[in-house]
Formats: sequence, structure tokens, C-alpha cells
Amino acid sequence: MQLAFGQFDNRELNKVMPIPKDTKIGVGSFIIQENFTVAIQDTSNKRIYNATTRFIRRLSNETGVFLNHGFPLTITENKPSLHISYDRIGELKLFEDESYNLEVTNQSIKLHAVTDIGVLRGLETLYQLLNFETNHFYIPSIKIIDAPRFPWRGLMIDVARHFQPVDVLKRNLDAMSAVKLNVFHWHLTDDQGFRVESKTHPKLHELGSDGQYYTQQQIKEVISYAGDKGIRVIPEFDVPGHATAILTAYPEIASKNESYTIERNAGIFDPTLDPTNEKTYEVLSDLFEEMTQLFPDEYVHIGGDENEGKHWSENDDIKEFMNKKGFSSNHELQTHFNIRLQEILKKYGKKMIGWEEIMSPEIDKSAIIHSWKGVNEGLPAGESLIKATEMGYKTILSNGYYIDLMLPVEEHYAVDPVPYDNVLTKEQEDMILGGEATMWSELVTPLTIDSRIWPRTAAIAERFWSPKEVSDVENMKMRLHNVSLELEKLGTMHLRNREVILRNITKTEDITAISELTKVCEPLKLYSRNKGGTEYQTYSPFTLFADACTTDAKDAKEFEKLVDELINQPENKKIRIRLNQYLHKWNLLSSSLEGFDNPIINEIKPISENLSQISSILSMSLKNNNLSTNQEETLKEYIERAKKPVADVELVVIVSFERLMIHLKNYSKVAHK
Amino acid sequence: MQLAFGQFDNRELNKVMPIPKDTKIGVGSFIIQENFTVAIQDTSNKRIYNATTRFIRRLSNETGVFLNHGFPLTITENKPSLHISYDRIGELKLFEDESYNLEVTNQSIKLHAVTDIGVLRGLETLYQLLNFETNHFYIPSIKIIDAPRFPWRGLMIDVARHFQPVDVLKRNLDAMSAVKLNVFHWHLTDDQGFRVESKTHPKLHELGSDGQYYTQQQIKEVISYAGDKGIRVIPEFDVPGHATAILTAYPEIASKNESYTIERNAGIFDPTLDPTNEKTYEVLSDLFEEMTQLFPDEYVHIGGDENEGKHWSENDDIKEFMNKKGFSSNHELQTHFNIRLQEILKKYGKKMIGWEEIMSPEIDKSAIIHSWKGVNEGLPAGESLIKATEMGYKTILSNGYYIDLMLPVEEHYAVDPVPYDNVLTKEQEDMILGGEATMWSELVTPLTIDSRIWPRTAAIAERFWSPKEVSDVENMKMRLHNVSLELEKLGTMHLRNREVILRNITKTEDITAISELTKVCEPLKLYSRNKGGTEYQTYSPFTLFADACTTDAKDAKEFEKLVDELINQPENKKIRIRLNQYLHKWNLLSSSLEGFDNPIINEIKPISENLSQISSILSMSLKNNNLSTNQEETLKEYIERAKKPVADVELVVIVSFERLMIHLKNYSKVAHK
Repeated sequence: MQLAFGQFDNRELNKVMPIPKDTKIGVGSFIIQENFTVAIQDTSNKRIYNATTRFIRRLSNETGVFLNHGFPLTITENKPSLHISYDRIGELKLFEDESYNLEVTNQSIKLHAVTDIGVLRGLETLYQLLNFETNHFYIPSIKIIDAPRFPWRGLMIDVARHFQPVDVLKRNLDAMSAVKLNVFHWHLTDDQGFRVESKTHPKLHELGSDGQYYTQQQIKEVISYAGDKGIRVIPEFDVPGHATAILTAYPEIASKNESYTIERNAGIFDPTLDPTNEKTYEVLSDLFEEMTQLFPDEYVHIGGDENEGKHWSENDDIKEFMNKKGFSSNHELQTHFNIRLQEILKKYGKKMIGWEEIMSPEIDKSAIIHSWKGVNEGLPAGESLIKATEMGYKTILSNGYYIDLMLPVEEHYAVDPVPYDNVLTKEQEDMILGGEATMWSELVTPLTIDSRIWPRTAAIAERFWSPKEVSDVENMKMRLHNVSLELEKLGTMHLRNREVILRNITKTEDITAISELTKVCEPLKLYSRNKGGTEYQTYSPFTLFADACTTDAKDAKEFEKLVDELINQPENKKIRIRLNQYLHKWNLLSSSLEGFDNPIINEIKPISENLSQISSILSMSLKNNNLSTNQEETLKEYIERAKKPVADVELVVIVSFERLMIHLKNYSKVAHK
Repeated sequence: MQLAFGQFDNRELNKVMPIPKDTKIGVGSFIIQENFTVAIQDTSNKRIYNATTRFIRRLSNETGVFLNHGFPLTITENKPSLHISYDRIGELKLFEDESYNLEVTNQSIKLHAVTDIGVLRGLETLYQLLNFETNHFYIPSIKIIDAPRFPWRGLMIDVARHFQPVDVLKRNLDAMSAVKLNVFHWHLTDDQGFRVESKTHPKLHELGSDGQYYTQQQIKEVISYAGDKGIRVIPEFDVPGHATAILTAYPEIASKNESYTIERNAGIFDPTLDPTNEKTYEVLSDLFEEMTQLFPDEYVHIGGDENEGKHWSENDDIKEFMNKKGFSSNHELQTHFNIRLQEILKKYGKKMIGWEEIMSPEIDKSAIIHSWKGVNEGLPAGESLIKATEMGYKTILSNGYYIDLMLPVEEHYAVDPVPYDNVLTKEQEDMILGGEATMWSELVTPLTIDSRIWPRTAAIAERFWSPKEVSDVENMKMRLHNVSLELEKLGTMHLRNREVILRNITKTEDITAISELTKVCEPLKLYSRNKGGTEYQTYSPFTLFADACTTDAKDAKEFEKLVDELINQPENKKIRIRLNQYLHKWNLLSSSLEGFDNPIINEIKPISENLSQISSILSMSLKNNNLSTNQEETLKEYIERAKKPVADVELVVIVSFERLMIHLKNYSKVAHK
């Protein structure tokens, strides 16, 4: 049968994300047995050889089947189980063909693509189709014709605020490829660090990184690793603002004559390159000459965001320069700087991409505008995106995909790179290349970064790849849960590292109770966790309760649904029982945690105490179908108290408690009339 | 107070391993607060700067204290909390001074050492002393004078049978340094792979590694990383046997004229270099010239083990060569080969170390003999070790430290590098340099290797560092449990990856029941898991139940103790209650697992069914203080069935079940008389 959009609740697609463009499920299935073989047309194509070897290994690990053949064979073999072919070797560039056709029957599997990169995409889909019965694993009979909706599907990782070693990047690249993302945007420099070895200007990494930088060999290693997975690597050198680390090495190109040290806080800072100083362009030209040789992609990201130009306005020479040039705003001066930068990049054969602030009519239209403002400024999402297309720029969207803000997955999933109800022409729409999830790292370390990226980024990846009509949130969440378990097998730490943090909190192996608490708590959202950017320094501990919590707290979400259901069916016993099971569990939590006694866990105890007290009253009230005025008053007091953040988390289930309280109040009146 | 040996049950030493040479615990403690600072004499010594920065970060992560200073200061600072000094920079070589003195008072902490390497050792002890009360973390008042018992304290990792990427090595180096190991023995080549990039002979890694090798840059990176932690790196190139991967690249230097392919099974194989072929020495001379430049340590391990010389005996030319030289055994021919090798190494300024088979009077006494045979050959432990000292060789011990054999930690802990009841002279004893735990990787992958190395290797490290008299097994186990939790904070995966495997087995996030089962099961021991070396290929799945199980299964060990106690105090109610709690838990396990239904978990169900059935009868019998003949017969049948390995694990609690059954039988007779 062919699936209509919205019909993705078929069991066979329960692990598939992003959903393919066109899917027909047939009858029967291909059963995975020891004699499973994979044949490729050319074992000298390392990308395909490695990808198929990985596929074979994953298949065996997932199924426990001891395969006879651990490596791909050539296509001359008789009747391989999986036959892989492609027309040509793909290039790692914008607009490269990533489409593929996949056909699974009871007898064999055929995967064909225009490019070998398309083969990689198809292999991931095939792996996601793997399913099981009691006695065997199988892949369902299916026909898939697939291609991405957008050509630019990225994840940005900020390695400046907290350095992320190569192995963190590699495991995230593995996960990216599993959900068909194709751009790794590497935010390499910021106020808190310059993270690339520069051989021409070694002071940059020597003085600007606390020794935490990538050697050029490591950069090459990451690029090669990404390429092996069909992922482009776009480096970002953020200038002229966000430049404290650069100025720590080269104070002579600053806009203010002072000495600089690496920034330890988070926020927007004043240190800015001097766009009127020729030395600035000499350094940048040298640097880009070196870096453009290191990074093969056609595009280089120059940042350009959040420069308030305070030091420009304070500098008489710069003001004079502006007068001479007739610039009436710092933005014009920055545009001047950007034009110079664009020329430098052009000299080295590169195109520019920059955050939306670089947009200005004078900038050559080869530049890509990276739209990011909105959500936090109260602006309509994608305003700059639309403007960019109007002005003739290609553009990508990150506004709405700020995964560091710890928002629920459905909020990101609801954002489309092409704004809803837009009045864009077809030409304008085509200029929207896609988007990027952005993992800013002020509040994450290698221990926690995966749990901020995954699994939510898989849902964003679906938004970038799948047809617009794929938008059923409940179905997405169900699949996301399964995908999450698959991602960790590729190496992501988003699940397992939670346990490590919890053991650090209890100082024992016993994390049963504290683990329950993480299911109803979430880290503070938006920018409320690190107010003013100075509560945490880069060297502060990120091994505490807030770091073990994630968005979309499981029990809180399920309880919320149950409360909804109860309001609709107040007499439904099953719902009442399930609500009470939660309340009962939470009621006991406080005493379960009592046995632990150290400064870290003691800080959290108020949360569990509130939770237990509220649960106790609600449970009683639910049982008696009555909420007395006294109970109500007490509850209100507890709930108010529980709304206050503790240890940088919020007890998110509190909203449902409030709704349940009101319901019980109203309903008990009705019931007792 | 000064602790006498054996008195290590002081709470303040609960996380300390290895136990220092000399410890005096004082009164009071140093409390960790925000103003904690560390001062070092010279911030330009990167090893110390990095180590102290790591220390500060770990201190903050462990305590949750937001320190004001995230980096070390110089010693000119006023009254630092921790004052670090050393007399000179240490060298990474055998016999380097690693001693240190540590003094903690209520007011300050002082760490002094002869070398900066000694400082590293002292910092680890200091970190292990960190403890807590309800409201604060502290370090107890203490005076420690410490130095290692043996200068060679190693861990060997075999990266040939299963390749272990750089990040696996790095996290294990971190853990090694935490327990004061100082030699990383890198088993780089074997029949299953040649894992180093060779620029002079690229065919070695190109044809001999399936693309899984370290680039020379990565080798340098690992050596530098190890050096930063005061760890020497000894490379091993195993010749003339264990050489299939080399011969895959260079069949022309084989002893048998045939083509070779990388070995996929485990075991001892025939492919052997031809020691009568000058080309062999040309290749090896080139290779060692290249590799000795890459690896700075004075020693190079040349393997030399398990060469049966079958292809030598089959080759007429080789036999003729032996006749000419007057060699009457293959061993003499191998000695000829080793002498040539030793000369080559000498030319490049290196000394030779080799497995005990290299021992022969003709070998220059600068060589170190690596003793390994014993346990599995039924030989007395350390036989070759003693012989080596008699013959005038320095020697190290690995027999007894084969951690891949999945033996209980106390077995390794009981083995001393200096054999008990020996008749060694003082000079001979001094020639015993220490030992190495050996992590052979036939049955481990990056996912599981940590759980085979840790925590047991920490106990072996204590054997190598601490005074011989430190030997209380129960106290060691208590500390080991705590150390295990500390090691994972450095990055080891031995605890968290178990969960990943269990989720792969249940195919859900729910691993509560299956996790219980891992606490009574252990992987098959010695060489019984992979009989004949052909059950598993290098590409077989290692993501199954046996891979989630480890030695020293927690509940089985505790149940064993309880049964002991019951036998001593048959009427003790508390013991009976605790036994019954276990039996009750296990009785329910089978039905808890029923809900899971896939081929992997279905294979394990017989284990839980046996466990539940046996527990049910024992529980009833324990309650009634009676074991009927029928019950006994049934039990015996179940126990016999449960003794058979399933899915490559043994239900280790079965031994205690049998003892409990016999006790109940005998005791019920007594009680009912």
C-alpha cells in the first residue's frame, strides 16, 4: 500500500526519521540470516566500502546474527542479499544529488542512487527499517523513492565556549548522518576561545585557547570523517565581534587600546576588531589563506553577529574614518569590513556566509544570509530570511532551531524554513536553502552536549528532509523515542551520561530515586539559567542536577496527557488509577532521597519534598473525589513554592498539578452537589 | 594517628587506591570553598599546568563548588590553598623518581615531589582523599610519604584483534594515571591487524588493517597525551609469529610461499616471518628505523610469543639453513632471529623487551623478559620470571594479570610480582621490575573493553604500587567499588556502556529486569567463551548479554556471603530475611522478562526461568525450614540444567544455590528431628 501523508503510524516506520518522500509498503519481508551479504560495484570507493562495512557491523550488532561475511563483496557475486549501485561519485557541495531508490522484497534488497552520497542516505533508511518478530529480524517489503526537501541541513556546534574534543564531534557526525543531516557548521572562534591551530599566526591558538584547540591534523581528520558520511564542514571564524580570544593574541588590531584576556563568562562583549586598521586585514587575509586551504568547502562562515560597535563609537580615529567614508552608522562600518572580508575570501576561491547582521545591499549576492534573530527578540520568526530572499540572497534558517534554549521538541518541529502563510515567489522559496540547529555551548561540556543535541535534532532533521506535510507531532514523538535508542548505538552519550551525572550526585551507584526526579524536572529555559552570563564561568561545574535533566521530561509529559484525559472523562477509573500510580510514586520520592546526604543532593531535596507533599494531597483528593478548602489552600501554597526554580531546574509537572487541582476542585463541587 | 598495615578501613581512605606507603591521619580537615586556589612554581611546565587545571576542574565537578579561580596561579600568590612544588622535571623512563610528600592541615595543603611526575601521583592521591559531610566537602588532615614499590606498572591493550580508536586509549590512559600506572604497552600488530601507519612500508597498514590503523599523527597524539600523565608508551610489534597481517602485505618474507589474508578468527596461527631471508631483516630494519623515531621510549616490545615454527619445519630451505648453523630446534632459530632484531634495535638506540619465549643465554642482558605463561598451561606462576632473574635478565610479570580471562578480582590481587615463598636473592628481586595487566581483545570492542579493564586493573595497580603487606581483600573490594565510580568521571565507559547493551537487548529503554540478571551472571571464563577461537570472528556481534555481564557479579557475591552466614547461624532471622529478599526478587524475574519478545532476549530467557524456578523452591524451603525429597530432586534437576552455559554466560549464583540446598536439606533434618 502507498502511504498518504499523515499515515506514518505504520509499525514498519516506527524507527524511520526523517520520513521518506514516497513510501509503498508491500507484503512480506526480507529475513536477516547468517548468509546475509552486501555487494557493491567498486570496493575502491572508500566512502561506500566503509559505509557498507559499518552497515554490516550495525546489522549484526542490532540483531545478534553472526554473519558469515563481515565485509562487502563485489557486485559480481551471485545474488547478494543487498545490491548497492550508484551512477557517479558525489561531491561534497551545495545542491549535490542525495536522492535514492530502495526496494525490498522477500528475496532481495536493491539500493540505487545517482551518487554514492545518496547511497549513504539510503543505507540509513534501510537500517531504520530493521524490525523484529519473536524469532527473527527482518526488513519489510517496501519501495521508497526519496530525496531531501532542502539541500542545506545543518548542525552547528560551538566549540569556543566549551571546547569539544574530536571524539565528541565524531560521534555527533555519526548521529547526524543517521538522520541525514549534511552540514556540520563548526563555530571555531568566539570570545572564550580560538580553537584552531594556526601555523602562520600561532599566537591565536597559543594565547587564545588555554591549550584547548584542534591541531590542523585533527581538523583534517574531522573533515575526512565527515566526508566519509557525506557531511560538509563549514568553519566559522566569528568577526569582527565575539573576538576577545583573537584580541588576546593580537591586541594591536583591537578597536580599543588595551590588553585582552580570554573571556570566562557568557554574553555579548565589547572587544571588536578595528575595521579601519590595515593590519586587521593583513591578519585576516593570512588567516583565511591558511584556513581556506584547510577547509575544502566552498563556503566560509564569518560570523558577524552581535557587534554593537561600542569600542568603535569610543574611538576617535575610527569615528574620523567613518566621517571620511561618510558612514552614518556602525552597521555601515561593519558592511565596509564585510566587503573587505568577502574580497579576501573571493581571492581564495571561497564564498561567504554570515549571520543575518551582514545583510546589506552592498554585499555581493554570492553570500548566504544565516537568519537567527527572532524568538528572543520578540521578532516574527524568519523575518530576515524573507528579507534576504527579497534582496536576492540565498539564506538558511536557525531561528527556531536554537536547541541550547532547552525548549520542547515540538516547538522546533513546528518551525519550517519556509515560513507558513508567506507570500514568497517560487524563486524566493528556492533561495531558502534549509536550516541549521545551533548548539551554543555556554552551558554544555563534553559530558552533557549530546543530551542537548539529541534526540531533538533528529526531529529538526526531519523538518529539513521530509515533505512539509510530515507534521504529526504525536507520531514524531513516538518515532523520536525509538530513534533516540538507535542513536546511542552510534556512540552518542545523551542517555548514558545522565547516569554518570546522577551517580556524581548521589555519590553511590544507587540512582533509582534521583532518576525518577529527572523525569519531572527540566533545566531552566531560554536564557534564564545563566542570568547575565555571569552565574557560570566556563570552568564552573556542569555535573549537577540541571545537567542530568533534559527537555521533554518523560513523566511530566505523560502526566499532562493523563490530566487532559481525566478532565474529559472525570469518572474513568483507568485514568484515575494511572494518575494515582504517578502520585503514589512521587509521594514516596522524598523519603527515598532522605538516605543520601551530601551538599549536592541536599540542594535538590526541596524539589522532591515539594513534589511529595503535593502528590500526597492530590492523591488523597483524587481518591476521595473531594478537595477541601483547607487542602486547596495548602496545595496552592505548595504549588507556589514549587514554581520557584531550585538548582537551576523547574519542576515542570507543576503545571499539570495546578490543572488537576482546579479540576478536582470544580469536579468535587459537581460530584458532591 | 599512623596506620598500621591492614588498618585501611579508615573512612578517609575509602576511595584511595593504591594505598600509599606511609600515612598518618591527623585531626580536622581542609574544607573546600569557593576561594580554593592552587599555586605552582612554574606555569610554563605544561604537564603540571594541565594536571593542576584538570585537578581544579575535577574538584569543582565532584563538589559542585563554583570556584573563583579556574586555573592554577603562580607560587608567588599569597597563601594558596594547595601549594605544589618539585625539584626537577621528570623524564619518562624506567626508574624515574615518582615519590611525593603530601601534607594536609586545616589551613593548607602542601604537595612536594622530587619530579613533576611525582606531583602527578600526589595529585591523584589528594583527589582520592576528597570526602564529604552534610554541608561541605573536605580533605582530611593527613601526612603521606609515598613512593611506588615497582618501577614498571603497566597495562597492555591489544588493538590488533579489535581496533581501539584514539578516544578509547585516551580515556584508559586517564584511568591509568588515576591509579598510578605508568606504562602503556601498545600491542599494535598481530594476525588480525597491523595498526600503525608506516610511511616507508605503507602496504603494512594499507593491506593489513581493513583501514583501521593509527596515523603517525595519532600515535604522536597518544604518546603526548600519555606523557602529559606521566605514562610511558611501549609499542609492540609482534614477530616472527602472530604475523599474518604483516604477511598479508609482504608475503615474500613468509616462511611458506602462499598468499595471506588478514586473520578473522582467534588463536595461534602458522604464518611466520622467514628468519633465513635477508629481506625479512631489511623490512624489519626499515620498519624499526621508522618506528623507533616515532616512539620515544627506550624499550621496544618485539613480541616473540607462541611461534610454533610449523612453517619453518615444513620449509626445506629453512631446514637447510638450520643445519648449516647447527640449530637443533626452532627455538634456536628464533633466538637467531631475536639476536638480529636486538642488533637492529641497538642500532636505533633501543632496548628489547619480549615475551618469555625470547629468553635464551645468547640474548644480550639488556633485554627485559616478559613473563606470561602459567595459569593456562598449569605451570607454576612466575616460573619464567624467576628463571630470568637467575639468568641475569630484568623481568616483568603478566602471568596472573590476564584480565581478559574474566576471573574474579581477588585472583589477580593475590598474585605478587615477587613470588611468595621464593628463594630469590636481593639482587634477583631487584631485577623484577613490576608487571602488566594484559587486555587481549579477541572478545572486546570499544563498547565493552572498559568493563573488562576496570575496575579490576585498579586492584592490580595497587599490587604494583603499594607495600606488599597491603593485602586485605574485603577492604580492597570496598575501596574498589568507590574507585570504580571515580574512574567513570574520567571518562571510562565500564558502567554506562552496560546500559547501552541492555537497551540493545530489550530494544526499549526498560532495562530494570535484565539489569538484575546481569548481577548474577558472568561471561564464560578463561578460554571457554570462544572455543577453538572460531565461534567468534572479529566482526561478530559483541553487543549481547555476555557483553553486558562482567566478573564479580554483585548479587551473586553478596548472596554467597549470606549463605556462608546462614550456615554459621542457621537460626539468624535477619540473614534469612535478606536471603529471602534475593530469592523473592529472582523469583519474579522470569515473569518480568516475559513481556520482552525478540530473538536476542528470547535466547536469554532460559537463564531467568531457571533462576526463578530455583529461587521459588529455595524460598519456600527456607520459609518452612524444610526441604522435602521431592523438592530436593526437582532442585537438583533445575540446578544441573542451570549449570549449562547459555548465551555465553554462566549463572554464577548457582554455586550458592547448591550450598544452600545442601544446608537446607541437612538443617531441615536436624530441625525436624
